[in-house]
Amino acid sequence: MSRTVKIVEDILSANDDLAFQNRSKLQNSHTLGINVMASPGSGKTSVILQTIKALQAEYQIGVVEGDTAAVTIDADKIISAGMPAVQINTGGSCHLDAVMLSKALPELPLENIDLLIVENVGNLICPAAFTLGTHFNIVIASVPEGDDKPYKYPNIYRGIDALILNKIDLLPYIDFDIAYFKRGVQILNPDVRFFDLSCKTGEGIDAWANFLRDRIEGFRS
Amino acid sequence: MSRTVKIVEDILSANDDLAFQNRSKLQNSHTLGINVMASPGSGKTSVILQTIKALQAEYQIGVVEGDTAAVTIDADKIISAGMPAVQINTGGSCHLDAVMLSKALPELPLENIDLLIVENVGNLICPAAFTLGTHFNIVIASVPEGDDKPYKYPNIYRGIDALILNKIDLLPYIDFDIAYFKRGVQILNPDVRFFDLSCKTGEGIDAWANFLRDRIEGFRS
Repeated sequence: MSRTVKIVEDILSANDDLAFQNRSKLQNSHTLGINVMASPGSGKTSVILQTIKALQAEYQIGVVEGDTAAVTIDADKIISAGMPAVQINTGGSCHLDAVMLSKALPELPLENIDLLIVENVGNLICPAAFTLGTHFNIVIASVPEGDDKPYKYPNIYRGIDALILNKIDLLPYIDFDIAYFKRGVQILNPDVRFFDLSCKTGEGIDAWANFLRDRIEGFRS
Repeated sequence: MSRTVKIVEDILSANDDLAFQNRSKLQNSHTLGINVMASPGSGKTSVILQTIKALQAEYQIGVVEGDTAAVTIDADKIISAGMPAVQINTGGSCHLDAVMLSKALPELPLENIDLLIVENVGNLICPAAFTLGTHFNIVIASVPEGDDKPYKYPNIYRGIDALILNKIDLLPYIDFDIAYFKRGVQILNPDVRFFDLSCKTGEGIDAWANFLRDRIEGFRS
């Protein structure tokens, strides 16, 4: 048993070393990196597409798509939106790690990319344990998942800078107590920034894009 | 690297041994066991509560609740519905395994339980790799998760007997192609039984309860 624990520690430590190297690479190319974590079906790719639409006149955006299977559904959508995308097939693994990202970075024209969005595997548990080397982490929650998720899956909310609550167009049809949900996140992470939005109606996209714009400009200066 | 693979194999083999013991225990008490897997927020607990309501006049139903955190939100709901429930706190782990179930079984009055429902941790990836010793597996999908999930998270659909598509009351508000979704599941698992239902309206609960009733009666005879 202790042997297994030791190996897990070794893996996490090796991951942190590689995450540091990834970060250096992003710094060298002046690319701001964000790690997007969420449940399956929360709308990660839709939010990324809306983000591209809102910011593409000002910035070049690259995307790394993490998938457990060898399907390119999400990566194809990004490429159709005119931005460079690389897919990481985790081969059934439940999260991205720094090794995987280190293999994806050379496939992207980082020198020309202002913002790199890494879409992690859809999973509220495992991605929280692996740093990638990005500059900050966000979680996309969605109204149909229910307002109790921060209480049930706490770890994923701890290290994040921003929380997007997606699919707010469905609020009239679903019992979802926004105050209860946000209180659950704030207990774990008092400084988190909230963005309520709907990819369907476009509500809230501007506020989120403004936040990212500020981050990109702050990173450059 | 090969050392890690070896240890993973040892863990899975030890898990299978314990799953076999769990199965024997369930056989001895004439308890039919099902393992319920799903994404976070697909409505696992709501489906279980509706199942209890539909079958409680005929059968005694016990529930094992798998949670990554030490919150008893779901277990409390089952106990309020008048059925015995035990919570397994996985301590952050992303799935239940046979060891955890073997520790939970002695906490339940199995001799009096006809149907044991094991609610796995909300996760579309990791639970698929660990047999528990239950008699069959199901997945609960939900309309807001999107119709592409079988293509993106294939492993979870392979070993299941039944697939519940929950939250069909939201179909008018969400782009969801049922035929595309079901085709994706059937490619992986041609014999799966589908149950479209809504815990909100009660639609489809009877068909699902009839399926379970047949399974319980078939198990007894």
